Amino acid sequence: MQITPVILCGGSGTRLWPRSRAAKPKPFLPLVGEATLFEATLARCSAEAGFAPPIVVTGQAHLAHVEEQLGDRPGATIIVEPAGKNTAAAIALAALCLPEDAIMLVCPSDHHIGDCDAFAAAARAAAALAAEGWLVSFGIEARTPETGFGYLKRGEPVDSMGFRVAQFVEKPDLERASAFLAEGVYSWNGGIFAFRVKDYLDELQAHRPALARAVRAAVEAGRRDGRRFHPDAAAFAAIEGESVDYAVMENTGRAAMVPADMAWSDIGNWQALHAARTRDAEGNAVSGPVELVDCRNVMVDSDGPRVSVIGLQDVIVVVDGDDILVTSAEGVQKVGKLSGAANQ
Amino acid sequence: MQITPVILCGGSGTRLWPRSRAAKPKPFLPLVGEATLFEATLARCSAEAGFAPPIVVTGQAHLAHVEEQLGDRPGATIIVEPAGKNTAAAIALAALCLPEDAIMLVCPSDHHIGDCDAFAAAARAAAALAAEGWLVSFGIEARTPETGFGYLKRGEPVDSMGFRVAQFVEKPDLERASAFLAEGVYSWNGGIFAFRVKDYLDELQAHRPALARAVRAAVEAGRRDGRRFHPDAAAFAAIEGESVDYAVMENTGRAAMVPADMAWSDIGNWQALHAARTRDAEGNAVSGPVELVDCRNVMVDSDGPRVSVIGLQDVIVVVDGDDILVTSAEGVQKVGKLSGAANQ
Repeated sequence: MQITPVILCGGSGTRLWPRSRAAKPKPFLPLVGEATLFEATLARCSAEAGFAPPIVVTGQAHLAHVEEQLGDRPGATIIVEPAGKNTAAAIALAALCLPEDAIMLVCPSDHHIGDCDAFAAAARAAAALAAEGWLVSFGIEARTPETGFGYLKRGEPVDSMGFRVAQFVEKPDLERASAFLAEGVYSWNGGIFAFRVKDYLDELQAHRPALARAVRAAVEAGRRDGRRFHPDAAAFAAIEGESVDYAVMENTGRAAMVPADMAWSDIGNWQALHAARTRDAEGNAVSGPVELVDCRNVMVDSDGPRVSVIGLQDVIVVVDGDDILVTSAEGVQKVGKLSGAANQ
Repeated sequence: MQITPVILCGGSGTRLWPRSRAAKPKPFLPLVGEATLFEATLARCSAEAGFAPPIVVTGQAHLAHVEEQLGDRPGATIIVEPAGKNTAAAIALAALCLPEDAIMLVCPSDHHIGDCDAFAAAARAAAALAAEGWLVSFGIEARTPETGFGYLKRGEPVDSMGFRVAQFVEKPDLERASAFLAEGVYSWNGGIFAFRVKDYLDELQAHRPALARAVRAAVEAGRRDGRRFHPDAAAFAAIEGESVDYAVMENTGRAAMVPADMAWSDIGNWQALHAARTRDAEGNAVSGPVELVDCRNVMVDSDGPRVSVIGLQDVIVVVDGDDILVTSAEGVQKVGKLSGAANQ
């Protein structure tokens, strides 16, 4: 059974400013290792790894980055959204370009996955469940009481490959997140899904008929241009954007999850990126011309200037063009509110 | 009584790297306020303030900076040392260019003095004592147990303007420095002196005859070039460099001191510079395009790039060309050992 990767390249956060900027956001940067997050996503879902050619869903703003980093991968399709309408619509666009019985693996392109074998195993399990009619989320092993993620509560086992989803939980506060961790039956909702095309479209039709109709109209009036597909802008503009979780997963009676313990990170801020990088014995991680003296848990990422750091702990320094960010580990939550990040 | 300022512009430290570099060291930078430390020294000792034209003693390496910042000040003399031979020789060069009864006020050019009225008052008192035959040090009010300075112990009063120096103390350890502070009769030796020319030369002759002879020979064989005076290089090369404290002050029987409480700082490192600058209610001091969020006692000094700092305390960030320094307050002591500072 072949699996078609559906790679979502949307949005542009501000939390990795100044490295990630509106003009070149997170998926297209080599944040961990030498490949960009988008390139690493493609590599995890490559023909060599047994996957069908990918469908990339992106917007005009990022098309040039997508095409450059996608290269001449045979059979790839790029769906160019006329506007960002969240994940339910993006996935529907891809579904409508595929046969009804195809299995899609929906992957964000701005996450890091350290253990690719674990990813591949979870992808096979999720695809197998999807082939049986389940709508499958990846349930990421929760290692810390994160308050920035949604959680999936594990229900009864399904085919010894996964579990029913007993409950979808929105971002909890710290107390609830800690309780989830202690209970051991909650996973992070990592935004990775496996669907059979027909099942996804049927569920969307059932629970969000207007959305399903609008996407279908946008595809029918769309225009193909080589490997690019441009949905019709007017029809697409009518769509009310909604996440796949809200529109489909929380409404279907066939929601399942496969556990995945794969050194996953959404690289949601500089501290998360520091954690995902290789660090030395003192916990430091540097990139660029850097000298550290008496430092612990310091990350420095410079695109050119020499950075010398003395006597600091749990500090992050980022140099990008004419911007320098120096922040405590806790301070990373406020990066998006800096005037440089907010006024791009 | 007119006083001739003798302004010493030598050396090039590494402790304010990367702003202060071998090519443009500390005296020639606007570190506190808009004037450079050298310009501020000239202004404190100007004709408007009642001083005679200055004698500046410097080396070839810094001559261009001296001439540019000295401007066309009437009557100024620049003595261009063929080599750096420490302060005893530098002061002797100036003395030999002046009448025997002139009063010299010897000033380093890399210190900051916040209270210029207090400086002027101390200078008048020191000059008056010098006119009576005393060799006078400024005794800077010791406010913290600094281990980087020499100390002067106050002896019996002299003419209600100053005191005999009971003892010269080299850089003490922290315990002794704290004891000095508690005792209340010790001052920092700030390297500012008042001498009558004849007395200084007589004492140098008495205690360091070889040094006195070599300087005299260098002046006799020297060459004048407009306002510049070039001592003879061969004669000067023979000099064994020594500080005025070692060569003269610790040996003379006529050492006096005037107390000076004048918001003095030797700007000996970035932390000292932070203390000398105007700070806001949170103790922060910034220069250049800077945004601070949740910061206390942070200093940022950028020559161009925008610097954004979040959630830090007691941290100093300096941006100079292609170098960025980020250090804790304690870390400033190690700046000179960074490879960037050491390999200029």
